[in-house]
Amino acid sequence: MSTPDRDPPVRPHAGDFRWDGVEVLQYKQDGSAPFKDVTRQVLFEGAGLPVQLRYFEVAPGGWTTLERHEHVHNVMVIRGKGRCLIGEATHALAQNDLVSVPPMTWHQFHAAADEPLGFLCLVSAERDRPQLPTDEELIQLGRVLEI
Amino acid sequence: MSTPDRDPPVRPHAGDFRWDGVEVLQYKQDGSAPFKDVTRQVLFEGAGLPVQLRYFEVAPGGWTTLERHEHVHNVMVIRGKGRCLIGEATHALAQNDLVSVPPMTWHQFHAAADEPLGFLCLVSAERDRPQLPTDEELIQLGRVLEI
Repeated sequence: MSTPDRDPPVRPHAGDFRWDGVEVLQYKQDGSAPFKDVTRQVLFEGAGLPVQLRYFEVAPGGWTTLERHEHVHNVMVIRGKGRCLIGEATHALAQNDLVSVPPMTWHQFHAAADEPLGFLCLVSAERDRPQLPTDEELIQLGRVLEI
Repeated sequence: MSTPDRDPPVRPHAGDFRWDGVEVLQYKQDGSAPFKDVTRQVLFEGAGLPVQLRYFEVAPGGWTTLERHEHVHNVMVIRGKGRCLIGEATHALAQNDLVSVPPMTWHQFHAAADEPLGFLCLVSAERDRPQLPTDEELIQLGRVLEI
């Protein structure tokens, strides 16, 4: 996205958390994992940085996949509000809150019923694939996926 | 900042772009380079990521050092407004604008006279030291540092 010889140095915000030249992507391939109403945009990658900075937006009432992986997630909320599950605790989330998801920790982000939840997520460019919980692990978590 | 076994997974925004446990640092050592009214906070570093995500805030009327370096700067404005110089052009900046500063490109961020300019800046953890312009380079840029 940020190849210096091709891209403009400044991408003005086009409104509604969209930017010219930044594609609004599927969060994940349909059917690959449970989720509801999530989009993904890659704001910065390449250009000498071994990371990606993505913007995820969960529509009101939506949620990301409940998953875990070795790589850490560093998150900053920049729109709306919601909640997150990290390990065995849930936390309220609002604008400018910071979240660090440790390695191999179950996590899931939920938007509020009446507001989207938009957040930046910083990850290593090379990272392991997320794991989904087994039925037994879901029971251990004391939670049921809301699908 | 994000050592999983010591830090809480969620750092709520404490208001005014401050967070408990995130120190408000000097932008640079006094006298090391010209700048005016800038603070620095490191939001995420370590924890397997070879980058830092910093939050800089330039007070109304303030400005960062005019400098260049090999490492890229990936920036997202999250507070207020201002302008930036990149190479030989200036650009207006407002909330949610994205900026990529290419390698070895002169750059400087200015807050508006009546508003701060707060921005995230993503950089490699290992990076070269900034270079300051010579008097001759300042003349070539057609600009004079506002000090």
